Amino acid sequence: MKLEPHIRLAHGNGGRYMRELIDGLFAARLGEQGLDTTVDAAMVDVPQGVRMMMTTDGFTVDPLEFPGGNIGSLAIHGTVNDLAVGGAFPLYLTLNAFIEEGTETALLERIVDALAAAATEAGVKVVAGDTKVLARGECGGVYLATTGLGVVPASHKLGQQYVQPGDKLIVTGGVGDHGTAVLLAREEYGLRGDLKSDSASVLPITEMLMKRPGLRFMRDPTRGGLATVALDLARESELSINMEENAIPLSEPVQAVCELLGYDPLYLACEGRVVAVIAADEADDAVQELRLSGVAPDAAVIGTIGEKKGAVTLTTSLGGQRLIDELEDDPLPRIC
Amino acid sequence: MKLEPHIRLAHGNGGRYMRELIDGLFAARLGEQGLDTTVDAAMVDVPQGVRMMMTTDGFTVDPLEFPGGNIGSLAIHGTVNDLAVGGAFPLYLTLNAFIEEGTETALLERIVDALAAAATEAGVKVVAGDTKVLARGECGGVYLATTGLGVVPASHKLGQQYVQPGDKLIVTGGVGDHGTAVLLAREEYGLRGDLKSDSASVLPITEMLMKRPGLRFMRDPTRGGLATVALDLARESELSINMEENAIPLSEPVQAVCELLGYDPLYLACEGRVVAVIAADEADDAVQELRLSGVAPDAAVIGTIGEKKGAVTLTTSLGGQRLIDELEDDPLPRIC
Repeated sequence: MKLEPHIRLAHGNGGRYMRELIDGLFAARLGEQGLDTTVDAAMVDVPQGVRMMMTTDGFTVDPLEFPGGNIGSLAIHGTVNDLAVGGAFPLYLTLNAFIEEGTETALLERIVDALAAAATEAGVKVVAGDTKVLARGECGGVYLATTGLGVVPASHKLGQQYVQPGDKLIVTGGVGDHGTAVLLAREEYGLRGDLKSDSASVLPITEMLMKRPGLRFMRDPTRGGLATVALDLARESELSINMEENAIPLSEPVQAVCELLGYDPLYLACEGRVVAVIAADEADDAVQELRLSGVAPDAAVIGTIGEKKGAVTLTTSLGGQRLIDELEDDPLPRIC
Repeated sequence: MKLEPHIRLAHGNGGRYMRELIDGLFAARLGEQGLDTTVDAAMVDVPQGVRMMMTTDGFTVDPLEFPGGNIGSLAIHGTVNDLAVGGAFPLYLTLNAFIEEGTETALLERIVDALAAAATEAGVKVVAGDTKVLARGECGGVYLATTGLGVVPASHKLGQQYVQPGDKLIVTGGVGDHGTAVLLAREEYGLRGDLKSDSASVLPITEMLMKRPGLRFMRDPTRGGLATVALDLARESELSINMEENAIPLSEPVQAVCELLGYDPLYLACEGRVVAVIAADEADDAVQELRLSGVAPDAAVIGTIGEKKGAVTLTTSLGGQRLIDELEDDPLPRIC
């Protein structure tokens, strides 16, 4: 069945066109994932004796395609990663698509192709979905929402409540790559570069870290970046965090673009990194293992947890102390 | 904490404004539901030894508020009902909100109020959420997506594969009420009326029906209406369905509006009805019980399953036979 070249309002009507869109575009790519389009709700098999975790995330990235991925792969990685850093193993995902009338069918096909490939790679099944078609001007192309269900090993003891003064903060790769790659893809500034988004499943990273008894906390620094994760953690744990600017991995292109345009990479989104807190006596080992195994070649210890309530500071490369503040305005809308 | 009167792009930035929106507006209303805004993924307790079901649905109804509900209550009912007609008992929901810059905070508050009330009434917890803020002109006000997780009794034997020739088709109330109420709320035609959407949880209905061993199949006739449910069922079961026009419950206002504007109520959305197939010897009893208990006062037997492959026919009030066709164009975009 050959679909028309553009999505029409009738593709959202519940009737024949919608069935053609669902069967011809979505189910054709997600059937192996277990998507059954003949039911409104999908049965899922869950092993006995486990705890479960749910998460959801919306995606509005602009442009829809960027170096290193598109909104489809991003929607899988984002939700898989929220479960992964929660200490869960993702099993099932659901997918919502809000599609603007006039969207090219070929673009939508590339998005769902990337989504299916990312789901297969992360070992999750897309078991249920829904599409809505919006009139021209009522949507910015395509918005997606994915919801994930995962299982949590019985040994799960992760969270800000386990973080203690003296623990170390690590990050598993360069910060700001995703935000900068999307920024460049907009071509608003006449800048071009080879920079790719870091969008990826962090499951290999979290699986490696979770074998360590000293692991206290994990989070993925998406919207708001590393700085926002640190601020949230400091507030919720009622502890302080000091980070070393020199220790924070930052690629040259990200640094160059940020300096040119006045962005602070600490606030820019990553989509394939983990920020973790780990006991001081295990931190160097953990980072070595991540680096040498190739799972996260640029992982680094970047800071220390302190006792002062709620503050996040940065020791700059010149040796000064900078207080890290919460984001006020939005530096980059529609980054994820 | 008093929120500003309108939503700004900064409310989606991951920083302070977003935290104020999440804590001050969403968590303030959904905290009792179990929403914990300090984690990206929520632990959910699931009883042992059960099967589970997942479903997801997107909501783009225009206008956002209509007689009988708003997009918030609709988003709960839609997903609760997809689980309910699948034979599941809903336990947990997640929520995505896509919000246009400039949306009135008071409107958003009413939406989340209605959402919280509907969740409480249906006995489900909203355990995780995500918000995105879109620039003016990139979203039609507010879009929501809800994803539900439910448990399925071990006795579950529902689906089109159990439908047999001779079985009866029932509907649990007037058709087209939601579609017509939203149509009137748009005030595009200068029409006004007292008609309310039927948007409601169908759990009391499905719980009553599921006690009957002769229950074969349930579906809620939302987008595409009763006709589309019948067509899907006929196609998937490879059986035919004959419906009696005179038997289909239809309120006077819905009939009047449809005649005036040229809509066919069989294709208009309901949001609180169930279409069910039940063994012939139990159908009248089931309908009587639904009616007399007050759970569905207008429930009726409306048709019979036949052997002819895939056809849906309507015996009209004049005694003729009409073939029911699949929807082609979208009669009413953004109805749900």
